[in-house]
Parts: sequence; C-alpha cells; structure tokens
Amino acid sequence: MAKIIESVPNISEGVRTDVIESCVDAVRTTPGCTLLQHSSDPSHNRTVITYMGSPEGVEEASVKLAKAAVSLIDLTQHKGEHPRMGCVDVMPFIPIKETTMEECIELSKRVGQRIAEEAFLPVFLYEASATAPHRQNLANIRKGQFEGMAEKVRDPAWIPDFGWQRVHPTGGVVAVGARPPLIAYNINLSTSDVSIADRIAKIIRQAGGGLANVKAIGIMLEERNIAQVSINMTDYTKTPLYRVTELVKAEAARYGAHVVGTELIGLCPMNALIDSAAYYLQIEDFDRDVQVIENHLL
Amino acid sequence: MAKIIESVPNISEGVRTDVIESCVDAVRTTPGCTLLQHSSDPSHNRTVITYMGSPEGVEEASVKLAKAAVSLIDLTQHKGEHPRMGCVDVMPFIPIKETTMEECIELSKRVGQRIAEEAFLPVFLYEASATAPHRQNLANIRKGQFEGMAEKVRDPAWIPDFGWQRVHPTGGVVAVGARPPLIAYNINLSTSDVSIADRIAKIIRQAGGGLANVKAIGIMLEERNIAQVSINMTDYTKTPLYRVTELVKAEAARYGAHVVGTELIGLCPMNALIDSAAYYLQIEDFDRDVQVIENHLL
Repeated sequence: MAKIIESVPNISEGVRTDVIESCVDAVRTTPGCTLLQHSSDPSHNRTVITYMGSPEGVEEASVKLAKAAVSLIDLTQHKGEHPRMGCVDVMPFIPIKETTMEECIELSKRVGQRIAEEAFLPVFLYEASATAPHRQNLANIRKGQFEGMAEKVRDPAWIPDFGWQRVHPTGGVVAVGARPPLIAYNINLSTSDVSIADRIAKIIRQAGGGLANVKAIGIMLEERNIAQVSINMTDYTKTPLYRVTELVKAEAARYGAHVVGTELIGLCPMNALIDSAAYYLQIEDFDRDVQVIENHLL
Repeated sequence: MAKIIESVPNISEGVRTDVIESCVDAVRTTPGCTLLQHSSDPSHNRTVITYMGSPEGVEEASVKLAKAAVSLIDLTQHKGEHPRMGCVDVMPFIPIKETTMEECIELSKRVGQRIAEEAFLPVFLYEASATAPHRQNLANIRKGQFEGMAEKVRDPAWIPDFGWQRVHPTGGVVAVGARPPLIAYNINLSTSDVSIADRIAKIIRQAGGGLANVKAIGIMLEERNIAQVSINMTDYTKTPLYRVTELVKAEAARYGAHVVGTELIGLCPMNALIDSAAYYLQIEDFDRDVQVIENHLL
C-alpha cells in the first residue's frame, strides 16, 4: 500500500480565473500528485485547492503552488469576506493512508522551509506542527490579518518559524502545518442579514454554549444576497454534521430564517456522511464498519 | 486486484441459536471466504448471512451452507412472518469487485448444480440467472410457499433447473441466482396494526402508484408488537433510500402512525447512504465521486 497525504491549501483569490488557473496548474502539472478539486468563492475571494499523493509529490506541488501564488496575488489589493494573511493563506497536510501525523509534521517542516527559501514568504507552523501552544490555532496566528501582520511579527511571541522576521510586502505570511481530517461545511440561510449568521456562528461554537469541535463565523454571500454560517468541523467522529445542521436550523428559527442549502468544501471522509444518513434515516443497530461494503475493500 | 463476489443467503431459522450457529459455521470455516455478518429475525424466523470472497471460496461456503441447512432445518415445522419455500430460501451472488454479472451467473449455475447433487435440494435459477422470464422474480418462484411447492413443481412451467422434479420433504426448494447489489431495508412503524404496514407496502411499490425499484410487504414484529414495512430496494442509484423513507412517513401520517426506526439488513454500498446524507443535509453542488475521500482510494 502506498503512503497518501492530502493537502488543502487556501489561496487568496476567488475571482480572477487566470490567476486561479495558474495556481491550480502548479499542482496539476506536478508528478506524484493528483489534483482532486478546486472551488472558488467570489465573496470570500478565496480558492480551496485539494490534492493528494505521495509525500514527495505533495511536497513539490505545495512549494510550486506557493511560488505561483506569491508572484500572482497582491494582498494590498485584496478584499474579501474571509479573514486572510497571505497569498497562500494556509496549507495543511493531512494523513490519509499508510501515513502518520508525525510524517505529516515532518512534511510540513520541509515545505515550510522551502516556501521561506524559494518563495520568500515567512511561514508559521500551526496545528500539530506548531512550535508553541499559542501558535496551534490558525485564528490566533491570523489575528490582525495581512494589514496587521507587519507589526505582529515584531512581537517575540510571533516570530515566524521559517524565513524573514518581516512580512512579504504583497504575499504576506503563510501558515503551514499538519492536522487530522477537517470538514469545511457552510450553511446558507434564507436571510440577507449577516448579523443573524454572525449570532448563530457565535452560539453554535463551544465557547458560546454550543458544540465541541466546531469553529464558525458569519459571512455574507454577496452574489446570492444571503448570509452564511461558515463552519470548520475539527472532529466529525465526535461532533457529526447532522448535529451542527440541526442546531443551526433550531437557532435560525428564532429569526424566522431557515436553511436553504449547505456546502461541503473540498473532500470529506465517507463516514462523516454515513453517520448523518444513519441519523436521518433512523437506522437501528447500524454498524457501519461491518455493513458498509467499501469498509471491506479499502 | 482480486475478484470479490458477495453472497447473502437467507435461511429459514431465526430463533434456534444452535441451528443458526451451525449454519454460520459452514461459512465461517471455509477458506477464501470471509463471514461479514449474520442477522436473525425471530418474527420472520429467518437469518440473513453475508459473506464475501473469491469465486472459489464463495462457491465452497455456499454449498456447505446448503448441506448444513438441509440437515438442520425442517420446513414442515417452520412458522414465520416472511414467505419461504426452502431451508436455504434464496441464495444470490452479487458482483462486488473486478467481477461481472456474467461471472456471477456462472457461479450461480455451478453452485445450483452442486446443491442439487450434494444437498439433494431442487434449485430454481432466478434473477439474472433465470432460464425463463417468468422465473426471474423471486416472488413468482416462491408463490405457494413450501406448502404449495410439491404441486407447483409438477407444472411444466415450474420444473426446477437442477435436481429432482420433487420437493425435498423437509428442505423444500432453493432459489439461486445472480443479481446486482440490493438493499434490504425495513421501516418500523408506531403501530401494532399490521394492516397499516400492508397498505403502505402496497402503495409504495411501483404497481401501487408508488416508486420504481421498490419491493415491499407488511410484516408484524411480534416481539416488539409493531408493524413493519419490509422493503427490497433493487436499484438504489435510481430510487434512493431517503425517498422511500419519506414516502412511508407521508403515507403513515394518514393513519396517525410515524416511523420509529429503520433496519438495514446485511451490507449496503457506501453511496446509497451518502446520497441520503446529501439529501437531508441539503448539500448544494455535491459531487460524491470527487468529494468523498474513499472514492480516491478504492
């Protein structure tokens, strides 16, 4: 069996097709690595690129992508609904098959060093690769965003792990790290009032009296004129998709809003969806490890 | 990649543990074949056994199972909610990996011949293996059940494909054949009135103005004192699980009944559940072939 690692970087461009395609090409043309999907959000002004392959293939594709992004994306000109700090904003490595988190941490360090040396972007290691507890959470690193980063990196607590102690003038800084599979899941509401999405986002998070393993922000989808609760599910095995969906429905009801649809960004493990099917179909005594045929074939 | 065929025979015993275990052991101890699951229903007085393996392994296990069943199960003493005609009632072969329907038809003929010769049970080939159109549908073959079979096989239209033109006195007759993956799915209702399950079963079938690719009967679960709509989904890619579930909910509502739970018997393809998750979670623009990680690993 071959080692397979996934990467799901976000680049800070979701509108200009030529820029997006050039960045995606950096991945598409790298041997040992398969481009699986890319998905652009004009409101976020951000594109998620998903690829998978051998550790070596994914390393090459990731460094090439950073080089393309820094030459094509100018953060001083960037506007979007989603917080961001770099041309490649975040680059996670995820163990998929025959690989450990340890190997993904090693890969993130090799890629981080090369991005600093070859693309001239300062790099913060985050999540499982973080070099200090306060640097694990991406939101902490990104706080202040691109515009506040020049001052932030002068703070001894926020010296980048690789590269200059200066922000790249147009490319910003990048977070690179290893993490378990995460599900990017957005819930679209029947309202154009973003403050409703904001309030729901704050409530469904653990700190707001909501669910564990849920990160959420409220966002406006300008092109559809609807508000969205944009969610990261950090452990779908403990906090399933249906639970956050039903909680958002319940909280939206107080504002007379309902769910018009959801979005699954990038890839998702089979079991995350199967667990929600079992809930909604009310399947009794269901053992997915035994009863789902594919579990016997992998 | 190795050829993998699945078989999901039903035996006519769902109560006596020693008999069930002896039949299951016939599969469990056969090399080249993996027992995946067995599930007994005392109301049906019936056990479903699921196994998978190489064509050779599955052939051996299937013949051994028929020999065990004929020596242990006496249909003259059998009572149960579910229609039945043999000690092994039905034995389907399903292509799972690197195999064609044609190979499963060949396997069903080899197994059918051996069951007739080695277990002395007359065999009807059914579904894709049927030797005449009126013998494709299992319900047609089984009509009259064990008690009516002695007379039925004297009809030239119902001469068994293998073995005597006589019913085995205690073992009855067996249907053996090849078919695509089928989902055995039961919906339990909040009523002890089996006539409600019966009426819903008739309505949700194509012939009753209901759904294509759905076979259904109403059954009483005596031990829980509730009625059940027992369903076979013959093509989940066209008629998904959520649709039949929602239709049963809608039809049950007219009787003030609701769904208390469902049962998935045996194995189910991943995509059947993922399609229902996508429906209930309202996922927009979802491409399961791209977005489900496991689709890239199989």
